[in-house]
Amino acid sequence: MVDLVLSRLLHRLSAPATAMLFAVVAGGAVAQADDLQVKAIGSFYVSGHEVTLSGLSASEIATSAGMAPFHYDPNGEFETGQMYVEYVQLAHPSAKYPLLLWHGGGLSGVTWETKPDGQPGWQSYFLHAGHNVYVSDAVERGRATWSRFPEIYSSPPIFRTKKEAWELFRIGPSYTDHATKTAFADTQFPVDSFDAFMRQNNPRWLTNDAATQMAYDAYVQAVCPCVILVHSQGSYFGFTAALHAPDKVKAVIAIEPSSAPDPTKTDLSGLKSVPHLFVWGDHIKDSPLWPRFQGVGARYRDALMAAGVPNDWIDLPSQGLRGNTHMMMMDRNSDRIAALIQEWIDKQGLMQP
Amino acid sequence: MVDLVLSRLLHRLSAPATAMLFAVVAGGAVAQADDLQVKAIGSFYVSGHEVTLSGLSASEIATSAGMAPFHYDPNGEFETGQMYVEYVQLAHPSAKYPLLLWHGGGLSGVTWETKPDGQPGWQSYFLHAGHNVYVSDAVERGRATWSRFPEIYSSPPIFRTKKEAWELFRIGPSYTDHATKTAFADTQFPVDSFDAFMRQNNPRWLTNDAATQMAYDAYVQAVCPCVILVHSQGSYFGFTAALHAPDKVKAVIAIEPSSAPDPTKTDLSGLKSVPHLFVWGDHIKDSPLWPRFQGVGARYRDALMAAGVPNDWIDLPSQGLRGNTHMMMMDRNSDRIAALIQEWIDKQGLMQP
Repeated sequence: MVDLVLSRLLHRLSAPATAMLFAVVAGGAVAQADDLQVKAIGSFYVSGHEVTLSGLSASEIATSAGMAPFHYDPNGEFETGQMYVEYVQLAHPSAKYPLLLWHGGGLSGVTWETKPDGQPGWQSYFLHAGHNVYVSDAVERGRATWSRFPEIYSSPPIFRTKKEAWELFRIGPSYTDHATKTAFADTQFPVDSFDAFMRQNNPRWLTNDAATQMAYDAYVQAVCPCVILVHSQGSYFGFTAALHAPDKVKAVIAIEPSSAPDPTKTDLSGLKSVPHLFVWGDHIKDSPLWPRFQGVGARYRDALMAAGVPNDWIDLPSQGLRGNTHMMMMDRNSDRIAALIQEWIDKQGLMQP
Repeated sequence: MVDLVLSRLLHRLSAPATAMLFAVVAGGAVAQADDLQVKAIGSFYVSGHEVTLSGLSASEIATSAGMAPFHYDPNGEFETGQMYVEYVQLAHPSAKYPLLLWHGGGLSGVTWETKPDGQPGWQSYFLHAGHNVYVSDAVERGRATWSRFPEIYSSPPIFRTKKEAWELFRIGPSYTDHATKTAFADTQFPVDSFDAFMRQNNPRWLTNDAATQMAYDAYVQAVCPCVILVHSQGSYFGFTAALHAPDKVKAVIAIEPSSAPDPTKTDLSGLKSVPHLFVWGDHIKDSPLWPRFQGVGARYRDALMAAGVPNDWIDLPSQGLRGNTHMMMMDRNSDRIAALIQEWIDKQGLMQP
């Protein structure tokens, strides 16, 4: 037990040092150890509006032991519905447009930063590949912050358990508790960093989709033309943002989309100049849910094809990459997947000549 | 009304463009328009441990209109107690140690990034001044995420109203509602960006101080030796972190500390090699609460002095800087204040010769 605690402590303490000292690429075409010439680093909020609460009871709130109760009047004005965006702009980008990285459900922009095992993630990879990279936290997650419920958000949030993440993200077939879990033998996820990964999981509401889409649409209007790379739940928002602004979105790269607009109710013909790429990891068939999710993606892809929208479909196992999870941007071979995506971006004519 | 909505929309859309195009310094010694040579950009979590929830009832949760209720079993394992850190490391820093920026209560690391008016903030200023800059989100805020209550956190959170922020942060003497508010005539806060500022406010718990201090102490062990610049509520954690690790903390810069350890119960003699700087804005005496908060700071400063700890006290109005608020890192003249701090850091011998 002491060894376990010590090992966890050392793991935590060593993560930044590891990231700093060993920014070395294995398998990708981009040298992440090179310095970056940066023009600006910054952040901003998009969307958001005022709400006023009134008629709520003031109350006494317990504080830390030994302190007097705190008198709290919850009535007044608040902002809600905003999302957060951080950006790194290069002095000399080689991509034609900014690259926007949109996270999945219950997650935040941390998805794209340093990986839970301390190695550089896709934010760093695509900066080194020459993109101005924008990383956002959607409404309700991370630095977007969240609003009181049920007065502003209409429902309570849900919290993802380690078991759900382990199984849903296809790290392994089963998780009973931290001492009794099974990974796929060929998994690329750094399983020793699974607890570190779970620290970035956010509470999730099931009733904020409209506000989230509105914020993403405002984000596109604020910073595009751009290329959007979306993950999981974020794909629905990304596909829809492209439909809402096909003149602004130059490509959509969907990493394991978990849903998509219903193509029988959607006119996709406006997307003819917006190429779409789908990327899928391993063990889809070993999961109870993923064959259905992938089917939704395949139906959307077929509809894009029928509407004359350029598209590609990368099945990583069929390219010899085995064991990739739903969190492939955190997998040990994440640079190799990023290199495939970068190659696709280049083929679409989206890099400077 | 349409004009108001349009003006707000334009303000939101123009913020990033403003930050990108007009990174121009007014009054500070550092040229923020220069490119940065960056060695690494990344992030990590410190602290955090597993908790297990059991015996809670599963429930049906309402989702967006038209969707079936969601069956939710809240039992299982979760991480809690972690904090988030993002860093930018320069290829050739001119400071001897990293500079850690710690935010105040109900806020996050966004405090230090681009200001609500779209101008560059202190993260950018101190990067251009030659520091490796670390920006963190303490336990429960921003990308640290938060845990279920009352099962993990013992209390519900509180939410700061616009009125409270306006008056407590000394932007002006009174706020009734957004249409009826009064700013100090000489305020340096960009009042047109006040709503934008409120988007970065976080729900706040009153019962997480011990977990927060533990995480900050682990953070110091992970990345220091360092210089710590703390704001408001963060000052208590920063003063205490220096007491816990006087060999690791090379200086503490406290921006309007709202509290401090009780010097009658604390041995400060270990801090003799840790210079402390206090910085105070304007209109302290016009506030019902700030004379008391400043008194707590003054008592701590006197005790540092008595214990032989090097220290300085900057009262901005007495240096001719009028109208600065509690959020002085967002005020229009924030670069001038940063320049005073940078000069003090230099005088402590904390820059490379």
